[in-house]
Order: sequence, then C-alpha cells, then structure tokens
Amino acid sequence: MTIFEQRESNIRAYSRVYPVTFKSAKNARQTDENGKVYIDFFAGAGVLNFGHNNANMIAAMIDYMQNDGVLHSLDMQTTAKAEFMQTFEEVILKPRNMPHKIQFMGPTGTNAVEAAMKLARRATGRQEILAFSKGFHGMTLGALAATANAYFRNAAGVPLNHVRHEAFGCSTPCAGCNQGCGLENIDHIRARYKDPSSGLEAPAAILLETIQAEGGVNVASKQWLQGIAALAKELGALLIVDEIQVGCGRTGSYFSFDDMGISPDIVCMAKGIGGVGTPMAMNLVHPDIDKLWSPGEHTGTFRGQNLSFVAGKVALDYFRHGDLMENVKKKHDVVEQHLMPLLHADKSLQLRGKGLIFGLDMGDGERAAAVVSECFNKGLIIAACGTGGRVLKIIPPLTIPVSDLIEGLDTLISAINSVMEEAA
Amino acid sequence: MTIFEQRESNIRAYSRVYPVTFKSAKNARQTDENGKVYIDFFAGAGVLNFGHNNANMIAAMIDYMQNDGVLHSLDMQTTAKAEFMQTFEEVILKPRNMPHKIQFMGPTGTNAVEAAMKLARRATGRQEILAFSKGFHGMTLGALAATANAYFRNAAGVPLNHVRHEAFGCSTPCAGCNQGCGLENIDHIRARYKDPSSGLEAPAAILLETIQAEGGVNVASKQWLQGIAALAKELGALLIVDEIQVGCGRTGSYFSFDDMGISPDIVCMAKGIGGVGTPMAMNLVHPDIDKLWSPGEHTGTFRGQNLSFVAGKVALDYFRHGDLMENVKKKHDVVEQHLMPLLHADKSLQLRGKGLIFGLDMGDGERAAAVVSECFNKGLIIAACGTGGRVLKIIPPLTIPVSDLIEGLDTLISAINSVMEEAA
Amino acid sequence: MTIFEQRESNIRAYSRVYPVTFKSAKNARQTDENGKVYIDFFAGAGVLNFGHNNANMIAAMIDYMQNDGVLHSLDMQTTAKAEFMQTFEEVILKPRNMPHKIQFMGPTGTNAVEAAMKLARRATGRQEILAFSKGFHGMTLGALAATANAYFRNAAGVPLNHVRHEAFGCSTPCAGCNQGCGLENIDHIRARYKDPSSGLEAPAAILLETIQAEGGVNVASKQWLQGIAALAKELGALLIVDEIQVGCGRTGSYFSFDDMGISPDIVCMAKGIGGVGTPMAMNLVHPDIDKLWSPGEHTGTFRGQNLSFVAGKVALDYFRHGDLMENVKKKHDVVEQHLMPLLHADKSLQLRGKGLIFGLDMGDGERAAAVVSECFNKGLIIAACGTGGRVLKIIPPLTIPVSDLIEGLDTLISAINSVMEEAA
Amino acid sequence: MTIFEQRESNIRAYSRVYPVTFKSAKNARQTDENGKVYIDFFAGAGVLNFGHNNANMIAAMIDYMQNDGVLHSLDMQTTAKAEFMQTFEEVILKPRNMPHKIQFMGPTGTNAVEAAMKLARRATGRQEILAFSKGFHGMTLGALAATANAYFRNAAGVPLNHVRHEAFGCSTPCAGCNQGCGLENIDHIRARYKDPSSGLEAPAAILLETIQAEGGVNVASKQWLQGIAALAKELGALLIVDEIQVGCGRTGSYFSFDDMGISPDIVCMAKGIGGVGTPMAMNLVHPDIDKLWSPGEHTGTFRGQNLSFVAGKVALDYFRHGDLMENVKKKHDVVEQHLMPLLHADKSLQLRGKGLIFGLDMGDGERAAAVVSECFNKGLIIAACGTGGRVLKIIPPLTIPVSDLIEGLDTLISAINSVMEEAA
Repeated sequence: MTIFEQRESNIRAYSRVYPVTFKSAKNARQTDENGKVYIDFFAGAGVLNFGHNNANMIAAMIDYMQNDGVLHSLDMQTTAKAEFMQTFEEVILKPRNMPHKIQFMGPTGTNAVEAAMKLARRATGRQEILAFSKGFHGMTLGALAATANAYFRNAAGVPLNHVRHEAFGCSTPCAGCNQGCGLENIDHIRARYKDPSSGLEAPAAILLETIQAEGGVNVASKQWLQGIAALAKELGALLIVDEIQVGCGRTGSYFSFDDMGISPDIVCMAKGIGGVGTPMAMNLVHPDIDKLWSPGEHTGTFRGQNLSFVAGKVALDYFRHGDLMENVKKKHDVVEQHLMPLLHADKSLQLRGKGLIFGLDMGDGERAAAVVSECFNKGLIIAACGTGGRVLKIIPPLTIPVSDLIEGLDTLISAINSVMEEAA
Repeated sequence: MTIFEQRESNIRAYSRVYPVTFKSAKNARQTDENGKVYIDFFAGAGVLNFGHNNANMIAAMIDYMQNDGVLHSLDMQTTAKAEFMQTFEEVILKPRNMPHKIQFMGPTGTNAVEAAMKLARRATGRQEILAFSKGFHGMTLGALAATANAYFRNAAGVPLNHVRHEAFGCSTPCAGCNQGCGLENIDHIRARYKDPSSGLEAPAAILLETIQAEGGVNVASKQWLQGIAALAKELGALLIVDEIQVGCGRTGSYFSFDDMGISPDIVCMAKGIGGVGTPMAMNLVHPDIDKLWSPGEHTGTFRGQNLSFVAGKVALDYFRHGDLMENVKKKHDVVEQHLMPLLHADKSLQLRGKGLIFGLDMGDGERAAAVVSECFNKGLIIAACGTGGRVLKIIPPLTIPVSDLIEGLDTLISAINSVMEEAA
Repeated sequence: MTIFEQRESNIRAYSRVYPVTFKSAKNARQTDENGKVYIDFFAGAGVLNFGHNNANMIAAMIDYMQNDGVLHSLDMQTTAKAEFMQTFEEVILKPRNMPHKIQFMGPTGTNAVEAAMKLARRATGRQEILAFSKGFHGMTLGALAATANAYFRNAAGVPLNHVRHEAFGCSTPCAGCNQGCGLENIDHIRARYKDPSSGLEAPAAILLETIQAEGGVNVASKQWLQGIAALAKELGALLIVDEIQVGCGRTGSYFSFDDMGISPDIVCMAKGIGGVGTPMAMNLVHPDIDKLWSPGEHTGTFRGQNLSFVAGKVALDYFRHGDLMENVKKKHDVVEQHLMPLLHADKSLQLRGKGLIFGLDMGDGERAAAVVSECFNKGLIIAACGTGGRVLKIIPPLTIPVSDLIEGLDTLISAINSVMEEAA
Repeated sequence: MTIFEQRESNIRAYSRVYPVTFKSAKNARQTDENGKVYIDFFAGAGVLNFGHNNANMIAAMIDYMQNDGVLHSLDMQTTAKAEFMQTFEEVILKPRNMPHKIQFMGPTGTNAVEAAMKLARRATGRQEILAFSKGFHGMTLGALAATANAYFRNAAGVPLNHVRHEAFGCSTPCAGCNQGCGLENIDHIRARYKDPSSGLEAPAAILLETIQAEGGVNVASKQWLQGIAALAKELGALLIVDEIQVGCGRTGSYFSFDDMGISPDIVCMAKGIGGVGTPMAMNLVHPDIDKLWSPGEHTGTFRGQNLSFVAGKVALDYFRHGDLMENVKKKHDVVEQHLMPLLHADKSLQLRGKGLIFGLDMGDGERAAAVVSECFNKGLIIAACGTGGRVLKIIPPLTIPVSDLIEGLDTLISAINSVMEEAA
C-alpha cells in the first residue's frame, strides 16, 4: 500500500485518474517514477502556460534564492514584488490604458473571487451577485455560491445564498441544451431586473468567465459579452471577469477579453500568473472601486509570494513581443485541422475553443472517461470537464512544441477510436 | 511615487506599518534595499518558524528544481509529496498514534478551515459551528463567519450565518474583560445546548485555537480545553483545532495541543507547514470522518505544492529529535525574564504566552501602535494584534539566535520606555 | 386632529386614499359617518365576495352568539367547525374528487402560505421555492420571500432567501413588458433545473396564483399553468396554488383553477373563505403530504374562528347550485361591454380579467391614482394594483346588484374621462 | 369516523388532548355536545381573559351587526375602530404617559412580532435580534427564528437566521436548569457585545416576554428586566416586549411590565386585546420609531377587525376602575393557598406565577400529560407547557367565579394525586 493509499484523504481525485507517481517534468512532458513519459494536455489545470520547469523561470528563482531574496512577506514591500508590479504595469496595463490597481490576496483563485465579491457588495450596498450556469469560481463559501456545479455545491452543508444564476451566453450551445443562452435572454433579464415587482434584487456585480473552462469550454459570444457589460452598467452593477483559467495568454492574447470590447471593473487572476506553478492570485481593480477598501480588510498570510513574483515576471516577458501569442494561434489551427476528420466522421462530437483551450464534447461522461483513461495508458495526460465530465479539455502549455502537440493529438484520436470501436 | 503607491491596492496594510522595501532575509534578520537590518519578531505572521531562507531548505529546493522535479501537480502523486507524507507520518503521526488522514487543499489557512467546516457539516447533518470570541480563522466567507473580529466581518457585505460565538476560555483574562471565560461557562453552554427550548441548534463542530494568536495571544487553560472537548463529544459535534498559527513547534511541541489531553477530529494546518514560507495548507482528518468525502468535492488548483513539500520535509526533520523544542523552552524563559522588570514597573502591562508566542498587552491600541513604530525605527519588526491592536505579539523564528532575541527584546523595552516617557 | 391622525401608525395606507370614517355597509355599498354612500368595487381587497353584512350570515352569527356558541377554540373541535367542514367536504371537495385534508392556521393568508412552504420543504427535503414575478403571497418573512414587490421586500431588513423568481406566464402581457412570459420559458426553466451544472437547486415547490391579483390582474394561460404543473411533477416539486384572492367564486367557479386541468398539492385559502369578513385561513393539503405534519408543529392562537365557520358555511351554500356563478359570468360581460368604448377610444388602456376580477391597466401609476381619487370623490371605492399602482382593480362583491355595478362603471368611466381631459 | 378524523389535517393537536366536540361556553365553563360541562383553566391559551361569551361584549357585537356596522375594512377608518382607539388612548396610554402609536396588522401574534422585528431592523440598520431561551413568539419565519422551541423550529425547513438566543432571567430557575439566568449573565452579554472581537453583531432589538407563558411560566425578575432594558439602551437596540399572552390584565395590571420600571419601544399585543376571542393584533410603537414606516409597507387583509374593536372596547372598560385587577390579585392568593399543601407534600413540584398565570412544574412531561388527561376526564380543561410539556399552566379567565376557581383547583389536586398514586 502506498503512502497515498495509507494516508491521503479520500477526497483525492486526480491521483485516481492518473495512478502513478510523477518524478519530473519539462515543458509539455511529465515523467513518472518508472521513467514512463507523458505528453501533458492538461498543464496543471491551466496553470502551466509556460511549461513545466520553464528554464528561464527556474534560473531566476534559483538566483533569487541563492541571494537570500525574501521568500515570504505578507503584503510588505519587496524588491521582487516591485519588479513584478513594474513589469505588469509596463507590459500589460499601460498598453491597454487600464488604470486598475493590483490587489494581492491568499494565493488561490477562490480567494480572488471572494475578495472581488466583497468589494462589489461594498461598492453597491447590494448583496446579490449574478453568475451563470456552468460557471466555476472556487470552493470557499462565497465563491462556491457562484460556482454552478451541484457536485461542489452539495459539499457546502449550508445554503449558498446571495447569488442568482442565469443561462450563459454560449456562442455554440452544447447538444441537447435548451437553457435560453441567446441574446434575447439578456433582454428578459434586463426587463426583470428593471421591474420592481419581479422579485429580483439589483445585483452588486455580474461575474463571468468569457470562456467557461471547468464548465465544459463554453465560449461566450462577443455580442453576449457586450450585452452583459451594458446590462451591468445599466443596473449599476460591477462587471467582474474571472480570468483565472483563461487569462495569461491562454486564448491567444493576454486577457481573454482583449478583443471583446468590454472593460471589467475587477479582473480575477490566479493559476498562470505565477508563471511556473507556485501559487499566486491577484485582482485588478478599477481605482474608483479599489479606494473603498480599508487597509487590511481582506488579509491572508501568503499574499506576498516572492517566488511567484520572480517567475511571474519572467512570464510577463513573453508578452513584450507577439511571438508566443502568434504561436498560440498557429497551434490553435494545428489542433483544429488535426481533429477535423474525427469531427466529420462522428457528428455527435463537437469541438469548441479559442487559442489553446479546446473542449471536445463527447456527449457523454462515461465515454469521455474511457478516453481519458485510454489516453493515459498511451502516454497522454488529458482531463474531462463539463456537466457529467462529458467534455475533453485540451489545454497544453502554450509553449508545447508542435511535434509534441501533434503526437498528443494522434494519441487522443487513437484513444477515441479505440473507445468507439469497443463501444460499437 | 513608488510602484506600490501607484499601483498597489488601497487594501495594503503591513507596507504602511513597515514602509521600506525588503531585499533579503536570513534566519531572524531582514535587510531593506538601503542596507538597514531588522531583527524579525514577526516571522511572517507565524510562518517562518525555521527562519528566513533556512539553508537546508533552500538547498533542497534548489536541488529539486535543478532536477526538474514536478513543481505543480494539483492532487496528483509526486515523489516530493510522497516523501513529505512519509516523513509526516513517521515523525508526527505515528509517535502520537494519530490515525488521521492528510487532506491537501488550496494553500491558505482559510481554505483549510472551509474544508473542515464542510466536512463537519456533512458528518453531522448539522449547520451551526460553535466558535469563540476573538478567534481568527480566515477571510473567505465560510471561515470569516467563524472569525470574530468585526473589522473583518464588516467587509463581508452579506450576513455571516451558521456560526455561534461564545466566550473563549482564557487562562489569564485580559484586563477589563468580563465575558464569562471561566469553566462554569461550559456548563451554561452545555445546559443550553441540551435544552430543546433554548433556541440553540446542536453544533456540527466546535472550532477553536488553543492559543488565539491574532486575537491577542489568549491562552486557553488545559481544563477549559478538556471541558470543551468533552462537550463536543457529548453533543455529537466534531472538535476542530485550528493550528494554523500556533502549530509546527511554535508552543514548544509540534502541536499546541500535545500536552492538553484532547484528540481533535480535524486539525487545520498552514503557515509553518511549508517550512520556508511557500504556501501550503492541509487538514489532518480522523479516518471515520475523512471517508465521508467523495473524490474531488473540495478541489483547488494549488493543492500540490511541491516546493512546500520539499522544504516542509526538511522542517519535519527538526522534530526527529528534541533540540529545537528544548531551545524554544529556553528562549521562552529568556523572553519572560527579560521582560520581567518592565512588567514589575508597569502593572498595567500583561504578558501572556507559551513557547515562543507571547502577547504583551499594552491595554491600549494607540500605545501599542506607537511602540510598533518606534521599534521599526530602531530596527525591530514587531506587530500588534488583539482587540484594537492593543497587544504586541512576539513570535520570532524558533531558530532565532539568543543574541538576536536579546537584542530584539532590548529594542522593544527601549521603544516602550520612549513611548511611555513621551506620554508622561 | 382625529384619533387616527393622533394615534394610528404612520403605516396606515387605505385611510389616506379614502379619508373618511365608514359607519355602515350593506352588500356593495358603504356609508360614511356623514351619510355619503359609496359603491364598493374593492370588496375589502377581495374578501367580501358575498357582500357587506350578508343578511343570512349576520342572522346565523347572531343566532350562534345568542346561544353561547363557542367563539374561540384554537384547534379544538366545535359544532360550528364540524358543520363548516362537513359542508366544505360536501359542496366543494367531494364533487371534485379532491382527497385533500383541511388545515387551519393563524387566520391570515400569509400564515397559510408559510404553512404550505414549511410542508413543501419537509416533503421534499429541499429549501428553494420557485415563485413568480409580480406574485403576492404575504408579509411575514417566509411568505414575503415569495412576494415579488420590492416595496414590501425592502421592509424585511434581512435577506429574503430560499425563493427563486421566474417570469409569470401572463396570457396577455402588460404593455412594455419583455420578461419572457411565454411557454418556451418553461422549457428553459426545465432545462436549467435538469442540468446539474446550472447553479439552480431543485425546488421544494412551485408557488403561484392563477391570476395575480395584487400584481396587476395578470391572468395565466391554461397552457402555461399546465406546463408549470407538469414541470413541478417532473422535478418532484409540490404545486401550491395561492387562491387567497381569486378563490371562493371570484373567477366564476369556486376555485380559479377549476377548469385549468391542474391538481394542486396544496391550496392556500383565506379572505373570502370566512364569508363576511371575519378572519380565517386554511390550506387544502393532499393527504400524502399532510401526513408529514406532526401534531401542533405549526400552531396559532386563532385557528378556530367559529364566527368565520358560521358565516363561511352560509357562503358555501351559494355553491350548492350554480346561480351565483352564472351571475358572475353575466356581470363579467356587463363590465366588459361597458368598458369597451373606453378601450376603443384609448388604445393605451388594457383590460384583463376573468369572472368578477378585472384589471384596467392605465399604463401609469399617477394616472391610475388620479382616477382612484376622482372615483372616490364621485362615490366609488376602487383601488390600484400592479407595478407602480398602474392597474385599476375591479373586484366588487359577487353579489353586487347589476344596477350598482353599472352605476359604479359609469362613475369609473366618468372619472377616467375627467382625468384624461385634465391631462390633455 | 368524525369529520375531523376524515378531513382535518394531521397537524391538529388540542383536539387530540380534548377529544370531544364543544357546543357552547360561558365565562369559565365549556359544554360539549353531550352536555358534559368543563371548567376552563386554559382560556383559549390566554385569549379569553374576560370569559367565554362575555355578555356585554356579545350584546355590543350583536347591536353593531344589527346596525350593519362595517365588519371588514382593512386599514380604512371606521366608527368602531375610532371608538376602540379613543378608549385605548384614554384608559391605557394616557394614564401611563405612553406616547406610542397604534399599528394594526394581520390579526395574529406572529404578525405583530414580525412587524416589530422589521421596524427594529429598519430603525437600527442592523439585522440580529436578541431573544431568549424558552421564548415563544410565533410560527411565521421571522417570528419563528425568535421562538426557542426546537419542535417548532424543526418545522421551518430552512435555517432560522438573524436571531441570537441567550439565557432568560428567571426569578425562580426551573429544577435542573443551569443555563446562567442570573444578573451576572447580563454583564457577560454586555461585555461581549461591546467587544468588537467577540463575533457578535450589535442587535437591532432585544425581544422578550416578561413572563414566558408557553415556555413554562418563567417569570423574569424586575432587576433582570431593568438590566436588559439598560443593556438595550446602551447598545442602541430597541426593547420589544411581547405582551401577547401575559398582557391585557393577566398579571394583575394591564401590562405585565407596568410595575417593572421599563419603557418598551414596541409592545406586541394580540390574544386578549379583541376581548371575546375574535382575532386582532396590534403593536404600540414609540412615535420616533413609528415614523420610519412608509404607508402600507407591512399590510394585511384582516387589519381592521371591527368585531374585535367592538368587543375589545368593552374589554377596556374593565380597566377604567380597579375592580378586575383587585380580583385577579385575590384569585392569585386563592390559587397559591389552595396548592400549598400539595407543594409541601411533594418538594419536586414547583409553582411559579403572577396574577392569574401560574405554572405548576411537574418536573416531567409524561406526568404532566397524565394529569392533563385525568383533569379532562374529571371536567377540567388545563394544558401543559414548557420544555417537554412538563409544566401545567393555570390561566383561567380573569372573570372566573371564585367557586369555579376552587372547584377547578380541587379537580386538579385530585388528578395529581391519582397520577401520583398510580405511579407509586
């Protein structure tokens, strides 16, 4: 019996899907303790945009440590933090004319969402947040109320109040879905919010992902996003964009909303922001809103993650010029073209995505699980998402070599074919 | 204007108290970018029990990184995680006959508390948690409901339900406090819970710190802890001990409850568990309770913090033999003896503490703030806690050299004298 | 200054709209202390279906009192209660094959709704109730959560949880409304409830009025009601029909849902059920649900209102044969025909209704208020309802003489014309 | 099978304890349909302070009805209402210099409490209400949150939030109780409310009964009431006294708090206020608070209960001179003296009470139930209250003839002796 079987909590999950012990990793490849190598289409659930053990980041971190750089600093000022913030301002905020302040909190996405919800409630004096079907925003009680999935919600043990869910504005609705995801739904929502007899409270904020990653790679249309942004403005509600999984270049530009014509009041970031997989979370907050915080009202021990600042600064260098984003677009086309024959052969399959996040909707959770398992046997790490786990999520490191990408896609296709044949 | 003034959120707090930029740190000393050196009586709010940039830990981390060890792994199995868990079992759990399972979650204390609360609610089918005045358990909505401080609670923006607060069982009540902290209060609480007409719901859990750190270094008496543990058992409630700030050797033994004669169902850990200040959180959960988790019900991207596993394993080595804990006891006496004349001179001051956590109650928040500021000028980092910030908290690294400890204490005494004279 | 000005609470409302003191009343006429007579198109907000001081009821009540019949009895058994229940069974339940049990509670509609919500929650183990925009269900905290109007909701002072509101299925949507009241909305609601990732909890019950009276006389279509009933069944939710204002013959049959092809699990009754205006409330509860009550779990001092049983029994006699209901239909036509020219002349007006409940939508609350005031001056009592009070509600006693009905309608038309002319 | 067995809800309770059908009643006697006569020590749960079918009230009501007085009027002005209010002002408010406004609401006690809670929340901008163990305040969701009894609370089906319960200040603690009911508890409560780190929110109101009737006839001491009133003032909280069961002369003066030296901001009234058992509820609200209501914010169909105004006015006449209250005090002594031998014989029994409300604590619910049943067989109606129903509540009409009172007491003593002998 391994130490994991002996002592790790029953709640462990990925270790059941990938039942090996990993020893090392480099860019888009992981190696287990027996030396077997896996191509990684999962990237730590969207964290490792710049690959495992990115050489520049590792070098910077080692250098920092060898010079006894401050590792832990709460929200004190450190040189590493200053350099990260200066780079973030220079590379990301200034070119977009974003006046946003940077808020650090406990280094997990859910902490970022909780902080954003608190501030939206303070800014408006309202309590309800409008969130969307299939949205995923975290596991702590405030963020969990916004997370749509019943499996997670059922674990709360208390009612999840003060969030209202409406249908998400998928540009390509999932097969069998009839939740009313179109633009006319925004009109209905508006009409109800504006009617003082509708039973709805005006929202403090509208909270959304532009692409729902965990929810099944549901891509909102630009019109829907703009409609929602306009609605938020009209209702005096904040617009909060949860960029935790799809920001940091995942969609082919730094922010997933860069070309959407919307201006979020708060942007929640985590996962990829720390570069190499060390924890970090931060919110970008419009200064008019940010000034409503009093010092220390939302604290957290691990706010000042200097190794994440060091590696995260290196990550930002990728966005000084357009190469990585160009590559993402090329790799996007590689994926699409490679999977095309499969989609033509089986019309029940649906491919959704943008940049280097794709969802291959298998229509059925069991089938998807079988493919995940078969892929793993064949040396590809891929995970399922969406309702009932029916969608295979393809999110390799953005830095994956094209040859690895193609090898992984071939493995995926072969696994799907095996599963299909077996089922037939 | 610095980048912090330009771009960091208004919520920043410690950077206002210590308005310099830190460049490096080693054991109990921090150096700012101008070369000024500070003795550290704060240890990252109780994270850096083993000192800044502990040499063994840094060496192990660099070695791990140079070998491309897996850095980010969610809850997959890695060699670093296996080694940490094996060491934890061997050094901590087995010697205490603790059958507990280890659960990893988002790497912040608040996530650990949220997971514990969820599980307690599931295990009992109840909703209410009994927590205590002056307790601090985190900032996310579930944990925040258990945190007593109104400043933090007011930021929620929604009601904080499903937690009831009663008076904490301080062994030395703060001056002016009359909240009913004695043992007879446990009898009253019991009587009310047992009366079906009291309006109280049976609790899912009793959640406590054995020493309330943020709350002002309030040390519970052994009898009170045992009384509460007995009460929990009688009511069918879980006992959850939040060891986040006072575990990992802070009080002179690994767990603060080691010599208290209580057996918690869940122990929440964070801060010091990762050794060097990289984030990590984990719960120890009795297997009878742990088995109620279904896989993945409480997830989190940064569950598998391998650098924290690597450094945390080195930290555990300190507990293979008794040297560090012996030293903590000696340093405890140093602090006590050094501050004795001060306490004799001014009867309004009160010193509370155990191991290397002390609270010097100044009776007044303004006076305490003045001392913090004066200390900082004189080269000592110390922070205030407790209601209105009236308590100076002395929590240096456990590894602080005695000479640094004495130098810091001298600075503290000198700062207090300055502040007192000025006031006189 | 009158005693009302001196001592009645600032919350008084109708006494501001009708600022006289009423001395006596008979059938559809009220007389103030100065002898001025008013035709009553309001009927005590739908209570006085059988007219003020209905002679048969008064006679029965006086007889009962002269024989020292029990007036107050909580839920003990009395002869008056037995006779009421027997008559209700014979005249109402048996002919419809309704197996429902009769539950009495505190004698207000809101108490009836609260009891129904409790039982639905128990029966399903769920918490959320699905209610509808513009619905009105009462003022106490549980029922208030289902009431849609923000003016009432704002008075709660605490969040109103555990109820979700969706668009109501008006057969004739109000001008300017775009809330999505059509049948396809039921499909969207169903799809969302069935998706475990929608963020919606399965409802304990669907709670609705077939005609929203306070909400502006919004008449649900038969298809929508059947769609909702089917949805409730599919979701394992109870169907609760709030008949408080539109039951007891108001729509031309005893229950407003008699010809709708739906079978409610719980029917909430109040207002007209006591016949002459003394308080009474009761729920009809399907026995499979009713048996989940334990004795005395939802009590109330005034459950056994014997004067209401006595008068209420006389009221039931009206339904032994079809005369009253025939008359209601004839009077319906009188109203419609009489108002037709007005509607043809001003296309902005809209008339909605069934039986003897009509809403004349003036499109604007100020205009409606002016008409109410002008009517009152001219000797007609009529009230406004709906969002912003823009709908004039015509609900005279069912027993109103046709001559009084026509006189009242003439007054109404004249008042509308005055107001219109003045505005022009 | 009777109609009650066939058709009345399973929730019926008193009809199980007193399984006969009552036909008539006069003053303190009820007669069933078989002609058996019962002395009434229950008075409709404290409603019938002036006896069943009080001749003056019946005469006034019949006269009113024969003159077609308005029966139902919502909150419009009627002559009956004006006369009631004038009398209430003259007889009750003016002699006490009470400036309070009179608010009418849905005619049940729970509606009165709900209205008071809403207004307290508005007046303070706070949410939490402080209520007490064993308190009873009603069944609708807002009031139910303040009701302490778990049997009623369990029926809610949703969490009961925004009320905190502390120990009640019994002057004679029940045997076996150790909840901390003394005066020092007020000091502890104060200290916790004043500590911003106690986890307690400042309350909007403190809500209490001076004598908890349903809760087991627990009589608060004068010092405790004054201590609580002072605490409310200090905390900026309203003092709400729920006089529903013990007001209207029950304790020997009109208000139970007349001689307690406290000045409630809101007094909740119901039960006896309508005189003869027809429903009515009203709050007395200090004008500084009352003015915060906007018109119609807390409505209710049956606010204007004119028969209750008519009978209630007659009831007020009893308080124009002191005879009734003198008699109550004499009858109090009769009860006490009559039961003395019993109390001397069995030290486990405890008698608590004031005026004409007594609780005879049997120490055990089963024993109390057996006595209730035996009494009923012997012709005495008496009910049990308190935790587990262990307290026999003696609340005859205040107008009970002394001979009936003695006859009832003899029956009670005889029943207790029978039950005791059987048990021995």
